[in-house]
Amino acid sequence: MQSVTNSPKVALHEPSFTGNELAYVKECIDTGWVSSVGGYVDRFERELAEYTGARHAVVVSNGTSGLQVALQLVGVKPGEEVLIPALSFVATANAVSHCGAYPHFVDSEATTLGLDVAALSDYLDRVAESVGDVCINKRTGRRIAAVVPMHTFGHPVDMPALVELAARHRIALVEDAAESLGSWIGDRHTGRFGRCGMLSFNGNKIVTTGGGGAIITDDDALAKRAKHLTTTAKVPHAWEFFHDEVAYNYRMPNLNAALGCAQLERLGGFLGSKRKLTELYAQAFSDLPQVRLFAERQGTRANYWLQTLMLAPEVADQRDAILKATNAAGQMTRPVWNLLTTLPMYMACESMPTPVAQDLARRIINLPSSPHLTGAL
Amino acid sequence: MQSVTNSPKVALHEPSFTGNELAYVKECIDTGWVSSVGGYVDRFERELAEYTGARHAVVVSNGTSGLQVALQLVGVKPGEEVLIPALSFVATANAVSHCGAYPHFVDSEATTLGLDVAALSDYLDRVAESVGDVCINKRTGRRIAAVVPMHTFGHPVDMPALVELAARHRIALVEDAAESLGSWIGDRHTGRFGRCGMLSFNGNKIVTTGGGGAIITDDDALAKRAKHLTTTAKVPHAWEFFHDEVAYNYRMPNLNAALGCAQLERLGGFLGSKRKLTELYAQAFSDLPQVRLFAERQGTRANYWLQTLMLAPEVADQRDAILKATNAAGQMTRPVWNLLTTLPMYMACESMPTPVAQDLARRIINLPSSPHLTGAL
Ligand SMILES: Cc1ncc(COP(=O)(O)O)c(C=O)c1O
Ligand SMILES: Cc1ncc(COP(=O)(O)O)c(C=O)c1O
Repeated sequence: MQSVTNSPKVALHEPSFTGNELAYVKECIDTGWVSSVGGYVDRFERELAEYTGARHAVVVSNGTSGLQVALQLVGVKPGEEVLIPALSFVATANAVSHCGAYPHFVDSEATTLGLDVAALSDYLDRVAESVGDVCINKRTGRRIAAVVPMHTFGHPVDMPALVELAARHRIALVEDAAESLGSWIGDRHTGRFGRCGMLSFNGNKIVTTGGGGAIITDDDALAKRAKHLTTTAKVPHAWEFFHDEVAYNYRMPNLNAALGCAQLERLGGFLGSKRKLTELYAQAFSDLPQVRLFAERQGTRANYWLQTLMLAPEVADQRDAILKATNAAGQMTRPVWNLLTTLPMYMACESMPTPVAQDLARRIINLPSSPHLTGAL
Repeated sequence: MQSVTNSPKVALHEPSFTGNELAYVKECIDTGWVSSVGGYVDRFERELAEYTGARHAVVVSNGTSGLQVALQLVGVKPGEEVLIPALSFVATANAVSHCGAYPHFVDSEATTLGLDVAALSDYLDRVAESVGDVCINKRTGRRIAAVVPMHTFGHPVDMPALVELAARHRIALVEDAAESLGSWIGDRHTGRFGRCGMLSFNGNKIVTTGGGGAIITDDDALAKRAKHLTTTAKVPHAWEFFHDEVAYNYRMPNLNAALGCAQLERLGGFLGSKRKLTELYAQAFSDLPQVRLFAERQGTRANYWLQTLMLAPEVADQRDAILKATNAAGQMTRPVWNLLTTLPMYMACESMPTPVAQDLARRIINLPSSPHLTGAL
């Protein structure tokens, strides 16, 4: 591994700020526009929309808050259920909880690392029933209000199949595209298959604003409400303070949007670098038959945000030894998340059987993935 | 007014970034530490604690989120009630709603612009009863779980009296000190009279981080849980992703904390400038008997964050004409907020009679308050 990282000490993911980051941030400070109003917020929203092809992007304080609001906007109500992958970062489940709703866990598929659409279809046929226009979990009696696929490390879920399944069961579709800015299925960007999608610009993401996120959507009314609900629902007036619904302060400050604009200019370079890194790792590991670099599926283009080493089943029990040795040697590697079904606060939630997610969780190791590692930046 | 502002066009409040703001933010970008870890987050927390005298400060993404978490930490549960002033920014009520609780509105006092402790005491004697250790609203049957005083424009509420009242009724006390960094009662900083207090560093506040807030407290356990709950409740481990409760991503990025550190260095100067501005306005308006500059109460030290012109009752009906004329003349003035009891989503909430708050709302005009207006910065 060190033959690729070329360094005695290397992080899992470090951002690169050698473009216009400082210039844009300096401009905010020089002009005094660091907060909720300012040109970079509008510009970042416009450029995110342009890049992804969405009609609208609404930037927010982070991805978790963005997903919470997105779920509320598609109609998720307290006490309802939302289908999410068992194999995801805890934020996907937390956003559901913050709506007062319950996560309902779904198994993963080994070729995408994401939600298994075929298995979910069979499962819903068994456990759900249509009552009028709504999908009901027969066991709990609760409405299944939405499904949230997550594009793991930038590898797209099989969205065309999921769109069809969600429509058939009249379940709203919202994408957790936190990790997949720059990942496409055909010529459609991830996050654009459901009513809306969420992006994250956390410090470890392919493009960062320090902390931040966005809701992307083609739905004019939803975009308008997303903006309203994340900016205290203030009704425009020359001086009056009138707010017309319970709402949030989930704004992205202009200072952070400025960083985002500079980072977005460099996304092409980051994507090239990450793709190159996958090739270098694949070569470096090519004489070890027990491991392989996880690669994009045909017809999709992954952003290769986090480099993913797959252990063969017969060496899965060596995962922790490998993590220990590499971290001790200064090469920061990480396992994938503990399955959400194993966390104390989500253990009692509804779940389909998750044999594939359990297997994957034992076999994934993420490798150092900073874009500067290829030396090209 | 223009004799004070000295400019044909002047905003209500603009920040000043002529100190170390750029240097610190540049350091974040140069080192790559813009996000959730980084020295400025720790430093800003340490320096906020030192300045306010609190044992702990936990920085968060904004004041609204900070207040929500503070309320949850003192035990506010969904379906309970929280006493808040009818005269406040909508965020105070929204934070209560985000806990699933209901605002219950309290009248204001003309000498502090804040919660009227004596009137609240009489009101509680009528409407509340103690059942074991809890305070129950006899009309709704709901628990009254907490009271949240707010220090309007930096003018402190009569906290010693409120501390006593809250203790007598066994109601938790949490301060909305969003507007009162630099405001003291005797030698105790506002926000330090209850179990915990919230500060805001929104763009319009006396010290800004672009967007941000903090929870201050002397309670070690509460501070620890505040940090845990606002950072996804991750349990520390060399590489494992284990989270032990439903939690939030309410982190303040290091980039924003860097701005905060630089601003905090200049707080003394801002406070001096704002005090001076009050004197200048008071002089400028001294031959108009129908108006006066709102001044700090004896025994307290206000930060004079927003300059507050009080109209005499007999000219209150001219408020809108004054707002119109001054704004048309490029001098940005503002009325105080519409009473929360008049907003559609809070109209049906419990409320004591609010004659004083209603009267104040018709008589307050905020004047341009940027610290640079005195020319001293
Ligand atoms: C899959 C997934 N969902 C949600 C989030 C939450 O985004 P944020 O950290 O911006 O709140 C992240 C990133 O942290 C993520 O990786
Ligand atoms: C009284 C009051 N409470 C709460 C808040 C909310 O703080 P923030 O804007 O940081 O969410 C503010 C400031 O905006 C405020 O003035």
